[in-house]
Amino acid sequence: MPTISPLAPASFPEMPPIAGVRLATAAAGIRYAGRTDVLLALFDAGTAAAGVLTRSKCPSAPVDWCRARLAAGAARALVVNSGNANAFTGKSGRAATKLTAALAAKAAHCKADEVLLASTGVIGEPLDATKFAAVMQRLVADAAPGGWHKAAQAIMTTDTFAKGAAAVVRMEPSAVTICGIAKGSGMIAPDMATMLSFVFTDAPIAPAVLKALLRDGVGDTFNAVTIDGDTSTSDTLLAFATGAAAARGVAKIKRLSDPRLAAFRKGFNAVLANLAEQVARDGEGARKLVEIVVEGAMSKHSARRIALSIANSPLVKTAIAGEDANWGRVVMAVGKAGEPADRDRLSIWFNGIRVAHKGERDPAYDEAAVSAAMKKPEIGLKVALGLGKGRDRVLTCDLTKDYVAINGDYRS
Amino acid sequence: MPTISPLAPASFPEMPPIAGVRLATAAAGIRYAGRTDVLLALFDAGTAAAGVLTRSKCPSAPVDWCRARLAAGAARALVVNSGNANAFTGKSGRAATKLTAALAAKAAHCKADEVLLASTGVIGEPLDATKFAAVMQRLVADAAPGGWHKAAQAIMTTDTFAKGAAAVVRMEPSAVTICGIAKGSGMIAPDMATMLSFVFTDAPIAPAVLKALLRDGVGDTFNAVTIDGDTSTSDTLLAFATGAAAARGVAKIKRLSDPRLAAFRKGFNAVLANLAEQVARDGEGARKLVEIVVEGAMSKHSARRIALSIANSPLVKTAIAGEDANWGRVVMAVGKAGEPADRDRLSIWFNGIRVAHKGERDPAYDEAAVSAAMKKPEIGLKVALGLGKGRDRVLTCDLTKDYVAINGDYRS
Repeated sequence: MPTISPLAPASFPEMPPIAGVRLATAAAGIRYAGRTDVLLALFDAGTAAAGVLTRSKCPSAPVDWCRARLAAGAARALVVNSGNANAFTGKSGRAATKLTAALAAKAAHCKADEVLLASTGVIGEPLDATKFAAVMQRLVADAAPGGWHKAAQAIMTTDTFAKGAAAVVRMEPSAVTICGIAKGSGMIAPDMATMLSFVFTDAPIAPAVLKALLRDGVGDTFNAVTIDGDTSTSDTLLAFATGAAAARGVAKIKRLSDPRLAAFRKGFNAVLANLAEQVARDGEGARKLVEIVVEGAMSKHSARRIALSIANSPLVKTAIAGEDANWGRVVMAVGKAGEPADRDRLSIWFNGIRVAHKGERDPAYDEAAVSAAMKKPEIGLKVALGLGKGRDRVLTCDLTKDYVAINGDYRS
Repeated sequence: MPTISPLAPASFPEMPPIAGVRLATAAAGIRYAGRTDVLLALFDAGTAAAGVLTRSKCPSAPVDWCRARLAAGAARALVVNSGNANAFTGKSGRAATKLTAALAAKAAHCKADEVLLASTGVIGEPLDATKFAAVMQRLVADAAPGGWHKAAQAIMTTDTFAKGAAAVVRMEPSAVTICGIAKGSGMIAPDMATMLSFVFTDAPIAPAVLKALLRDGVGDTFNAVTIDGDTSTSDTLLAFATGAAAARGVAKIKRLSDPRLAAFRKGFNAVLANLAEQVARDGEGARKLVEIVVEGAMSKHSARRIALSIANSPLVKTAIAGEDANWGRVVMAVGKAGEPADRDRLSIWFNGIRVAHKGERDPAYDEAAVSAAMKKPEIGLKVALGLGKGRDRVLTCDLTKDYVAINGDYRS
């Protein structure tokens, strides 16, 4: 695997334990040698669970498994493996999910339907779930509060750094904690969720409310990130609320309209946004983090579509890799988006420098200043359409030779 | 510019002159040194003209110019330049088209409205049309029948080889000729037409019929090619029918239902398909020509959308560059297309070798045989959905480090 992304955070964040959540990792030898590849999370009784899953028409077996179990809104365990996505594996894939859940249920003394599953890695190779049998008892025995960094490491594939984020927010009469981990580096495009991410809290939140929070939060966080426009078969974002804070006097939240949710929602969305940004920072081969803001569109939806058209354009992404403020390609990407746009009202900025104004090169355009700005590791690209009040923001990264190298020999 | 694409045809084809069409090229110093960059085509009076143009919302100034003039269905001259696309150039761009047409009209003794224009090259730089003044008289004086190879060379940008195709078809009581040239290598995605292509014939065909032929022909030829999913601001496909064959007794074709059109349509579409394939063969950085066939879809439209989802997937394209039959990524691209698909009915072939069947790895899957097949310069990728009778075909190329290199420093 390549060296750590130059866009990585300086270090893994401090993340407190969540009452009601215990974690353990193991090396089951699924694909990788000399590293952990299984994560087990155990939840206290009464933990609410909610999730958003890929909209792919060819979802992985664990996605099918979760979709069927999430209706119950509860979970006692989560098993995640890296190295094999258990996707496009037919009957054997379904059998593997069933066996994995059975093994975890037996060891953790719960029902198989209370076990959620996620897998990430190669698509199309059968997953040998019997390998989990050898480690499951140990995992249950080892499970302990905290250990987020190790948990995030166990679920990495082409990721170059482990991704975690935490927030502590006030929920009267106490405080509650939100911790999340994520993995994702390639095959990243917004459609419900991005690869794998798991968020945990001790707040007592009813499943329906947790689901609504997730659905609302994902739109401007994970769904606003794209690495390569390639939506995964395995996208899974799960949230677990143990409710342990109830022991500290926090009454259960049963409605989205509960005023105590305001601070929680803010912290929850901040964790999602932080994790989503880390995914963009670890885009395969990435050397630049690119924030694309589109304003003056006819609607937020229209701004999003235009921002994604820019973010997924190979020509825009390679230009940024080449430190070239090639706004002509931005014009191209706006033009092909299929959304209302008026060439003669368009203005474009790179890192705050206006390079194009009202359909022409900016008269005050200074190539040297822009060239210097393009050398920075973080590029802000703003497009003003001058049509309406729609505004949106998408994160992506540049497209480098390393992306091609990483993906030209990933499977072999 | 890089060396000639390994996928290039062995040589430029033999192309006969078209009665009623005269060509000339010149070096106007638009951007490139030491090469021609202007093509002038002169047409005899009575020449019918039709075109399909980019659907970009940010079209170039010459596209706007052509759109306004094509309604008349006639043309006496065509001026094409490379090196500058005259796109996103505002008022100065409109002035440049006006000046270019005026210069050509004066030299060729026709009206400015009878001159069609196309430009290709950098977006956003003002085009100095006064440079055409120095060469226009010479171009008109030099204009002569034939000279297709030089014409195709003058309109190249990042193309590594000149693209031409011809057909001679029976049109009682004589024969008529169809000659076409094209340029295109990057910023190629199907939406009306692909970059620049010009097709000429001596057949006497009414403008409305020519337009219908073009509209029908483009769907399975140029619109079925994608290099990078990036639709250009300048896509222009123009067809000119001089009608010179009328002198040989060929009566004018005024209706699409004319039975004499059958052979012509076949030849015309073959020329379009040949040029479109050459564009794919010259995809920036391409080392593999990839034909994607999707069958068993709910409709041809659905098959097209799935084929394009595969063809535009960076992960599929980099895998092919790495000579990896990574059908897992094909599954991913089918899944994200948003069209009906059933994972458990999916079968996938690489160069005739079935690697996946009914939602699982093919039991008879031989990695060595597939690896050998993937080393070929032409890759056939077939996906059978098993749902209906919809079938379609798209051409693309692989995504290599050279694509990134070419586009990381094109403008600078």
